[in-house]
Amino acid sequence: MPRYKLTVEYDGAALVGWQRQKNGLSVQEVLETAVARFCGESVVVHGAGRTDAGVHAIAQVAHLDLARDCAPLEMLGALNHHVKPAAVAVLDVERVAASFDARRSARGRAYLYRIVNRRAPLALERGRAWHVGPALDAAAMHEAAQLLLGRHDFTTFRDSLCQARSPVKTLDRLDVLRDGEEIRILAEARSFLHHQVRNMAGTLKLVGAGKWRVADVGAALAARDRRAGGPTAPPDGLYLVRVVY
Amino acid sequence: MPRYKLTVEYDGAALVGWQRQKNGLSVQEVLETAVARFCGESVVVHGAGRTDAGVHAIAQVAHLDLARDCAPLEMLGALNHHVKPAAVAVLDVERVAASFDARRSARGRAYLYRIVNRRAPLALERGRAWHVGPALDAAAMHEAAQLLLGRHDFTTFRDSLCQARSPVKTLDRLDVLRDGEEIRILAEARSFLHHQVRNMAGTLKLVGAGKWRVADVGAALAARDRRAGGPTAPPDGLYLVRVVY
Repeated sequence: MPRYKLTVEYDGAALVGWQRQKNGLSVQEVLETAVARFCGESVVVHGAGRTDAGVHAIAQVAHLDLARDCAPLEMLGALNHHVKPAAVAVLDVERVAASFDARRSARGRAYLYRIVNRRAPLALERGRAWHVGPALDAAAMHEAAQLLLGRHDFTTFRDSLCQARSPVKTLDRLDVLRDGEEIRILAEARSFLHHQVRNMAGTLKLVGAGKWRVADVGAALAARDRRAGGPTAPPDGLYLVRVVY
Repeated sequence: MPRYKLTVEYDGAALVGWQRQKNGLSVQEVLETAVARFCGESVVVHGAGRTDAGVHAIAQVAHLDLARDCAPLEMLGALNHHVKPAAVAVLDVERVAASFDARRSARGRAYLYRIVNRRAPLALERGRAWHVGPALDAAAMHEAAQLLLGRHDFTTFRDSLCQARSPVKTLDRLDVLRDGEEIRILAEARSFLHHQVRNMAGTLKLVGAGKWRVADVGAALAARDRRAGGPTAPPDGLYLVRVVY
């Protein structure tokens, strides 16, 4: 039974997230329906990670098994034909070994969180970034972000619905960079807890706005209590950028 | 009667263009309605240039007159409140002299045309760029573009509905740059004919795809005949970037 690795881009704005749900269209359902339409097979498409409603992917990775062999390029064209009109695009299809598992084989994940920091609301970037009006100090946000690097109990930044067995994760990168009116937060780790990037972004925003001092972020982490962290940043700004194998 | 200059961003995808029309919502109608809601005055908002349906603006400029004096910052906030839910944002409001005219005072206009050149269709950039699957040679496109610089009769790149008195324009810049899978065409002139940028983009794409040689673009320009030019590129990729005064 041949296994295929898909690389998938999506605009999460009109989707209920990666995982199949009864209340709306998910990326998983879009892809599974496209597979059924193109080759008649009912498959499960396994993603590297679940993204929430409204969260985007520049390159989500997934795997699926087909009963029949299919040329990757043919599959790429057929899937992209059948995912329409959903805002989902299959960027790449590869044959992989049966041992490849999009989630379990992943050695790292990279996320981008985009803030547009300006007085005016968003027109071109609506749904694709978090709009924050008051001026943010990106340098202070970056300084505070460095306190979160390394292996920690991230309970403070973990959603109450998180299903991970342990709240201990190793954060390899958390850079905050300003480019004009845009602030980009780049986060890399082997894996993340549910809402971890959005909860870190919402907390760093408090530092940027001068409501928290840099050291407050370290204290919040040490508290190991979700109530000690800042609010969850909206999904609009979050992009799954890369899954590393 | 105080005059105000507005700088406006919009996502053209769901709009019928700048100009007020019966068949759908225009940027002009959105702004005029917002003015009426915030101060009760029925005004005409005069744009620096008409953008077509589906065309975006990073910074369109417009002017309007109010009977009463209004603080620019107050107007900025009120307009942005009342333009919702249209994908229009007022970036800046300034008091200007009564002699200022958004269209007539403009000394230059800059447009960006974005092509995403990759096999997979667009998800994140859908409606915001022209998707071209086959590989394009951006260097050849740039070389051909240079043949269009300067003062010429641009009839070949002029829409049949164009209302300009003369087809003679001076093109100051037409650069074609590749950045990964994106090709950007940057066009600058004092003013452009109707569809000129999209017609030039559609023609340069033929060069990029190897269907036209570089010299064919010069010959097309010299023909002064719309039928000698390439097809009109879709509105999705076009952005009004800047109006210079």
